[in-house]
Amino acid sequence: MFKIDSEDKNARTGKLYTGHGIVETPCFMPVATKATVKTLTSDELDSLGAQAVISNVLHLYLNPGVDVLKKVGVHKFMNWNKTVFTDSGGFQLIRDFNLKVTNKGPMFKINKTNHFFTPEKCTKTQNQIGSDVAMVLDDCPSYDSSYETVTNSLKRTVEWASRCKDAHKNINQLIFGIVQGGVFPDLRKICVEKLLKIGFDGYAVGGLTIGEPKDDMLRILKCTVPLIPVNKPRYMMGLGSPEHILESISLGVDVFDSAFPTRNARHRTVMTRNGCFEITKKKYSDDFSPVDEECRCYTCKNYSKAYIHHLFKEKELLGMRLLSIHNLFFILNMMKNARNTIRNNEFDEYKKDFMEKYHG
Amino acid sequence: MFKIDSEDKNARTGKLYTGHGIVETPCFMPVATKATVKTLTSDELDSLGAQAVISNVLHLYLNPGVDVLKKVGVHKFMNWNKTVFTDSGGFQLIRDFNLKVTNKGPMFKINKTNHFFTPEKCTKTQNQIGSDVAMVLDDCPSYDSSYETVTNSLKRTVEWASRCKDAHKNINQLIFGIVQGGVFPDLRKICVEKLLKIGFDGYAVGGLTIGEPKDDMLRILKCTVPLIPVNKPRYMMGLGSPEHILESISLGVDVFDSAFPTRNARHRTVMTRNGCFEITKKKYSDDFSPVDEECRCYTCKNYSKAYIHHLFKEKELLGMRLLSIHNLFFILNMMKNARNTIRNNEFDEYKKDFMEKYHG
Repeated sequence: MFKIDSEDKNARTGKLYTGHGIVETPCFMPVATKATVKTLTSDELDSLGAQAVISNVLHLYLNPGVDVLKKVGVHKFMNWNKTVFTDSGGFQLIRDFNLKVTNKGPMFKINKTNHFFTPEKCTKTQNQIGSDVAMVLDDCPSYDSSYETVTNSLKRTVEWASRCKDAHKNINQLIFGIVQGGVFPDLRKICVEKLLKIGFDGYAVGGLTIGEPKDDMLRILKCTVPLIPVNKPRYMMGLGSPEHILESISLGVDVFDSAFPTRNARHRTVMTRNGCFEITKKKYSDDFSPVDEECRCYTCKNYSKAYIHHLFKEKELLGMRLLSIHNLFFILNMMKNARNTIRNNEFDEYKKDFMEKYHG
Repeated sequence: MFKIDSEDKNARTGKLYTGHGIVETPCFMPVATKATVKTLTSDELDSLGAQAVISNVLHLYLNPGVDVLKKVGVHKFMNWNKTVFTDSGGFQLIRDFNLKVTNKGPMFKINKTNHFFTPEKCTKTQNQIGSDVAMVLDDCPSYDSSYETVTNSLKRTVEWASRCKDAHKNINQLIFGIVQGGVFPDLRKICVEKLLKIGFDGYAVGGLTIGEPKDDMLRILKCTVPLIPVNKPRYMMGLGSPEHILESISLGVDVFDSAFPTRNARHRTVMTRNGCFEITKKKYSDDFSPVDEECRCYTCKNYSKAYIHHLFKEKELLGMRLLSIHNLFFILNMMKNARNTIRNNEFDEYKKDFMEKYHG
């Protein structure tokens, strides 16, 4: 289900075979938390070059609910015929829903209703809605947790991972484990070893890009990625900044997801080869060039900075949409360039060149 | 610049020749007040069959401002290569900006700044931004104004119309007069006569669909439209309900505009041949059929009621966008059917059939 095609030092290109086609790696997944990549149609995603999106089983469990989704499956529901990953919601449980772990299992409260969202329920729900890749339910401690807290949390993560694996019954669906362990290399190592014993189709690095210093993030990524067997797909969760994606690719990471490009877009930030800028700045009000002169995306071919500036000033939704298209094209195009340069053994050069321009 | 092709009783099809092509009439213009039909790209408008849009010179004068727009023109600015009408903002001045008429001319206040928006300035601004059809600045009294108030307002409307005509210097731009006169047939008659003496490329009926009872609207429309010479384009401003559009077409109206279909869409209301409904109703949560079984629009070909229901429940912008596409397709398709049935002398039948289904 995963095949490496070419290697350039630790970086590699490969193919991930899922129930809805082949994902060429390294790949970036736009985030469709609620079964929609905000403002965009699935046709637009397709023409931007997206190969997979990641939705969130916890959000889908709450709305529209599994009774709706199991009737048609998530692909038909959102009119997306390519690969769908579903995140387990572990991260969201902690951050948004005040997760408590009781004797009955993980519990969270929404609108005064208690929901018991066990590893079994998380997995079954992902089975039922029919995503192509399910993620295990993990316990994601905040980045500044103590060694002791992370140790305890890790036990839970591993136990839940094992229960998710046991509960997994959809043969058309892959299941990935999630490595936790905070900023402690030894705990990361223990986690990988235990997950490998359980055995998953792929391994994600979780619990990073949640507020920790960048140096910690890269340090932990550098010591964790090599622990995952080379023949398995490696997925770095929630990483969206171009320079860190390229850095991770050079470490041997294959799969990425982040709301960064689309959230940026909705908050007026344009991503370009020469770095980011805010379209609402006064100087763009009469700049009739595209947001990125070098870009071949729909937005850059058809609209000017001045127009998009105007749309944002007037809070017109089309502005968010046009920048979402541009930013996703930018990051997906970067991934394509990464794959091509890895194939030609020129990735380091590409990365170096990119970084220089990006930090200008 | 206006040619009638076929007649079916008082209804007619024709061609309006503008600086950006031919508008086949009867036609409906989506509203692009701030140089954007909310949520949609110009390509989408084009593929929906829109032939013209109407923007608002007052809004454009305020943002992005004439200094920006005169550099590229409104068409290039919004990437729309077909016909653009610009409304004068008379209606908005009254409704939104607390218009006062002083010795210096019409004055309104925004953010503590006084703006003098004279008929000359209104016309010059439209000339500069390069719309294809300019509308005169009119004084639009509220629908419940007394005979005396409307009489005084009418004098102003006619005087301003004359000043707009004198100020009009863009030979590539048509200019339409606007008939006021409230709900008083004799005042409407006087207004038409005076505007005809000034002489315009087309005549709009203004000051209706601003809250007056429907019967008043139709009564005034019925007595006003026949006063406008048959060889001139007749434009009923702000009318968006399908049944009233068809009724007006049978009176001989050629041009319509309204935010109704797109505003409806953003407020969860779906327009169909069988009437309107709200997509957020519980029963649609697991209805996997398109919003309109008979419809061939992009939304109906690709997405289900259940999905759009979900998007609205989650306040996802894609929902507004998908219904905007559907509702505009619906109304533009109705206009196409109207043109075809007029050409075949079957318009009455089409209208009758439409009304029966629509009110079901």
